[in-house]
Amino acid sequence: MIKSLLEVLSGRKQAVPPIWMMRQAGRYLPEYRELRAKAGSFLDLCFTPEYAAEVTLQPIRRFGFDAAIIFSDILVIPYALGRSVRFEAGEGPRLDPLDTPEKIATLAPQADFTKLEPVFEALRRVKRGLDTKTALIGFCGAPWTVATYMVAGQGTPDQAPARILAYQHPEAFEKIIDALVDNSIQYLVGQLKAGADALQIFDTWAGVLPPREFARWSIEPTRRIVAGVRQQMPGAKIIGFPRGAGALLPEYLERTGVEGVSIDWTAEPSLIRERVQSRAAVQGNLDPLALIAGGDALDRAIDDVLDNYAGGRLIFNLGHGILPETPIAHVEQMIKRVRAYKP
Amino acid sequence: MIKSLLEVLSGRKQAVPPIWMMRQAGRYLPEYRELRAKAGSFLDLCFTPEYAAEVTLQPIRRFGFDAAIIFSDILVIPYALGRSVRFEAGEGPRLDPLDTPEKIATLAPQADFTKLEPVFEALRRVKRGLDTKTALIGFCGAPWTVATYMVAGQGTPDQAPARILAYQHPEAFEKIIDALVDNSIQYLVGQLKAGADALQIFDTWAGVLPPREFARWSIEPTRRIVAGVRQQMPGAKIIGFPRGAGALLPEYLERTGVEGVSIDWTAEPSLIRERVQSRAAVQGNLDPLALIAGGDALDRAIDDVLDNYAGGRLIFNLGHGILPETPIAHVEQMIKRVRAYKP
Repeated sequence: MIKSLLEVLSGRKQAVPPIWMMRQAGRYLPEYRELRAKAGSFLDLCFTPEYAAEVTLQPIRRFGFDAAIIFSDILVIPYALGRSVRFEAGEGPRLDPLDTPEKIATLAPQADFTKLEPVFEALRRVKRGLDTKTALIGFCGAPWTVATYMVAGQGTPDQAPARILAYQHPEAFEKIIDALVDNSIQYLVGQLKAGADALQIFDTWAGVLPPREFARWSIEPTRRIVAGVRQQMPGAKIIGFPRGAGALLPEYLERTGVEGVSIDWTAEPSLIRERVQSRAAVQGNLDPLALIAGGDALDRAIDDVLDNYAGGRLIFNLGHGILPETPIAHVEQMIKRVRAYKP
Repeated sequence: MIKSLLEVLSGRKQAVPPIWMMRQAGRYLPEYRELRAKAGSFLDLCFTPEYAAEVTLQPIRRFGFDAAIIFSDILVIPYALGRSVRFEAGEGPRLDPLDTPEKIATLAPQADFTKLEPVFEALRRVKRGLDTKTALIGFCGAPWTVATYMVAGQGTPDQAPARILAYQHPEAFEKIIDALVDNSIQYLVGQLKAGADALQIFDTWAGVLPPREFARWSIEPTRRIVAGVRQQMPGAKIIGFPRGAGALLPEYLERTGVEGVSIDWTAEPSLIRERVQSRAAVQGNLDPLALIAGGDALDRAIDDVLDNYAGGRLIFNLGHGILPETPIAHVEQMIKRVRAYKP
C-alpha cells in the first residue's frame, strides 16, 4: 500500500495531508508514562529494543498517525562517541562539557556503533509492527544542535557557550562538528538499513545563529550529511528541521538538498509557500500551545496551517514537539479536523 | 548641531552610521556597578532622577555614543498601574500573576503618572547633560512583551502562560493589552515632552508568536501606540524592535508606521534590505556574543553588519542588549571599527 508521507516527500501532494507529531511517543500518553516508570533510566528506555519499539508504536495504535518516528534521543551519538551522557529526572541532559580546545582534542573521531545496535533492533521491531501505509522515520540531531549540548554539558539559554566557543575557536569547534557529521551519516544509513522509510535531521537550536554562522554550522554540516547518506543510499528521503531559521529557510533548502523542510509555528506563510514549498515538501506547523489551549483557538490554528499550506505538498505536524501537559482529547480534535479537510 | 541618529530616522543616510548599544548603561561598566551598589533596589535606581540620569550619561562620557537611552525598565508601566513589581537579586522581575479572567478584571485601566514623574525628571537632567549632537531616546515595552510578565508574574520559557491565556481568553487578554496601549501612549508623550528626541518600543518576545497572533498582539497594539503618540506629538520619531520577528518584519513595518526597525542578529540581510531598509531606517544587529568573543570574530561580525546594511540608512547597534560579562575593550574595538568605516 501507499505511504502518504513518502508520496508527499516524493513530489506528490495528497488531497488530505499525512499527519504525525514530533515527540508523539511521549509523556502526554498514559501508556508511555506507565512503560517509562518500568524502564529504569531514560537511556535504558532508548536502548531496550522491546521498550523503544513499544513506545514508538503506542501513538500509532491510539491515533493511527501516518508515520511512526523511532523513539530515541539526539544525544545517542555523543554517547556512542564515548561521552558521558546522563538524563537526570526533571533536569534535562547532562554531559561532561567539551568547552576548551584542549578538551575537544581528546574527542574520539569514531563512534562505537555496537552501542547503537539497540536502536537498529528497535527499528526492525517497529517495522514488523506497522501496517503498510504507515511510514517509519529515523532521525538524528543536526551537528550544531548536538554540539551545543556537548560544549555546555547541558541545555543553555541562547546556546551561548557553544556560540562563543565557535567564535573564539572555530577550528576546535569544527572538530566536534566533523565527528558528528561522519558518525551521523553512518547512523542514518544504519537506520535506513534497519527499516526506516525516511529520515529527519533535528536542528532545534539553528535559530540562534547569525547568517554567516548559520551557513557554516547549520547548513554546511547538514548538506554533508545529506550528501553522505545519499552516496550510500541513493534516493533516501530526508526532512530537515532548522527550527527558528525564519527567512534563512530558502537558503537552507537550496544548499542542503533535503526533500522536506519542517517549519516552526512562527514561519511567514508567503515566504514559505513561494520559496520553500515551491521546491520541497513542507512539514508543520501547529503551535504546540494551541494544542494545549484547545477549543475554538485550536480549530482556528489548525485551519491556518491548512489554509496556508495544504494547497501544496504538506505533512501536517506541530511546529515543535508535543508538550507533556497536552490533553489527549485535543490531539483527537486535531486529527479529526485535519482528516476532514476538503481542499 | 545635527544629531546623526535623528538624521537617519528622518530619511538621511549618514556616511558613518550613528552608533549606540541597547542596555549601554549597565553592569558591564564598573561605574554603573559602583552606583548600583549605592542605590538600594533596582526600582530605586530607576526612580531616583539623580541616579538614573547619571547611569544614562556614563556610557556617553566613556564612549561618546551618538545616542543616550534613558535608564529605566519596561515594567514601570505595570508598576504605575498599581501592580506589585519586585526585582530580586539574580532572579529577574517578579509580579503578582494576572493569569485568569477574574484577576484581569481587577486591573486598573489608568496608570498613576505621578509614579513616573521621576523618569521624566531624569530625562530633563540627562538632556541638560548632553551635547547637541547626542540624541536622547525614550522607550517603553511593547504591550505584548509587558503582558507576558504581567500574566506569568515573571519571565517564562517561550512565554507560554501568556500565549495560552491569549488563546483561551482573548477578550480578557485584550483588556491587559488595551490598558498598556493607552498608558504607553501617555508615557511616551511625557518622555518626549521631558526632552526625548526619539522613542523605541521594545517587543523582546514578539518572536514566539504565530503570524495571526503576531498581527493581533504585536503589530496592532504597536500601531495604536505609534498613531496615538503622533496624534499628540506630530513628527515623533519611533523605532520598533519586534525581536525575532524574522520574515514578519516587513508586515510589522508597513502596518505600524515606525521610522526605524531594530533587528536582531538572526535577520536575513536581503529580506531586510529589500523590504525593510528600502522604506525605513534599520538599527542593529551585532550578535552580543560576538562582542564578548572579541578578536577577529568580532571584526568579521562588525564588517558583516556594515557590509549588509551601511549602504542604506543604518543605526549601528547590537541585535539585543549588551551582556554584563562583555569586556570594555571589545566595546572600544567595535566603536573604533564602525567609526573608521569607509563606504
